Amino acid sequence: MDSFVSSINVTALPGIPLVQQGDDLPQIILNSLNQLGMVLETGDALVVTSKIVSKSEGRLFDLRNIEPGAEAQRLAGETRKDPRIVELVLRESLKISRQSVGVLVVQHRLGFVSANAGIDQSNVDGSDDMVLLLPLDPDASAERIRERLREATGTDVGIIISDSHGRPFRVGNIGVAIGVAGMPAVLDLRGKTDLFGRELKISIQGYADLVASTANLLTGEADEGRPIVLVRGLRYPAQAGTAKDLYRAPEQDLYR
Amino acid sequence: MDSFVSSINVTALPGIPLVQQGDDLPQIILNSLNQLGMVLETGDALVVTSKIVSKSEGRLFDLRNIEPGAEAQRLAGETRKDPRIVELVLRESLKISRQSVGVLVVQHRLGFVSANAGIDQSNVDGSDDMVLLLPLDPDASAERIRERLREATGTDVGIIISDSHGRPFRVGNIGVAIGVAGMPAVLDLRGKTDLFGRELKISIQGYADLVASTANLLTGEADEGRPIVLVRGLRYPAQAGTAKDLYRAPEQDLYR
Repeated sequence: MDSFVSSINVTALPGIPLVQQGDDLPQIILNSLNQLGMVLETGDALVVTSKIVSKSEGRLFDLRNIEPGAEAQRLAGETRKDPRIVELVLRESLKISRQSVGVLVVQHRLGFVSANAGIDQSNVDGSDDMVLLLPLDPDASAERIRERLREATGTDVGIIISDSHGRPFRVGNIGVAIGVAGMPAVLDLRGKTDLFGRELKISIQGYADLVASTANLLTGEADEGRPIVLVRGLRYPAQAGTAKDLYRAPEQDLYR
Repeated sequence: MDSFVSSINVTALPGIPLVQQGDDLPQIILNSLNQLGMVLETGDALVVTSKIVSKSEGRLFDLRNIEPGAEAQRLAGETRKDPRIVELVLRESLKISRQSVGVLVVQHRLGFVSANAGIDQSNVDGSDDMVLLLPLDPDASAERIRERLREATGTDVGIIISDSHGRPFRVGNIGVAIGVAGMPAVLDLRGKTDLFGRELKISIQGYADLVASTANLLTGEADEGRPIVLVRGLRYPAQAGTAKDLYRAPEQDLYR
């Protein structure tokens, strides 16, 4: 094997219970690793779906308690959506980017663009009235998990809070990072040279999104119950970013 | 370990030579696996960067032989780009989606949207005059590699020809599939139920893009020279798609 060989291992953590408000995610992670006979290593990355972070943080809302305002009523009529869900979408959004029957694409208060503000009606407590909103501050959620794991194990690991997003131009959801701690969110490769010593031109990598998409291959979106994925072997540089590094300002967005 | 445990292994193949026109990529893959002491298994996925596929297929063009037409001259003036490169961009594109200084975002003749039609000036033979265009038909390239590996080893593997794209809304390139053979390009999870038996609503996964992004963590974009990545353990269903499955028709694109 020459020095170019490298490999990563990606493992869905087993035995994760149904998460409830107040549950201790770092302890759940450590219990699962223990079950696997594994210990954390500095440089590992853990990808945690936003769904269980939201549940642990009590971001579950009962639609029967939501009073839709006038704008929500109007938009719900136009999109034929539940006005109570539209009300929550509006509360979670900076602006509506696009609307159509059954769809609201919004700029989320966290900064990214997504359908229905990431509000989730699946896998939520078995009731049609319960919906799950994204964590209030996923970068902070990631940092809290990272700190707790460092205290418990003495290791420095990267944490990504992931979500699954649709996107322009291409079919199908991919994994994206909406919270990052202890690792880079984007990698700036400018200044690196290619095989012939020429400086690379387009060389910013959406690094945490790549890791989130890798994990997405194991978490799936259905009944598999594998919301935490360990990625080992990445060798990312010791630069800590946040998910906000991944959100492009509209005036700098040549693809939009 | 319970039945939910699963893991994937991702390995950058070592010892890949600088690829030239006419080189036999399946043989290069087999030689590298042999060097690692590994053999292909049915269900493996191999991600091959479009760059080496293009090189092997002779998609290298010498700018000194390119005569820019009137439209290329005009667009080159507006974008301050090399008119010969703009000429090649136009030849490779169905239409210009967006232009700005230094940038042309186009709908590629293959169907996707990308900057500069995927034309590559880095890592190309050490000359400033040589540029590399994408393969003529990357789905067919993938299928040829798959067939050859099946003949040589008796295994059915999935092949992805990958590229690295920028995207709307988010910072940084990610890996995408521009050619697919022997595996799904998108996975339709509709009809699967969530943990509470409710049917999932948004559940189309950009599967081959997830795998391409996973590989992108190892190929990098600089001087690492690791253009082929083996992904083992995916357990994708036996459905063969093509990269065209991943291109969204503009009239169905609610994010655009």
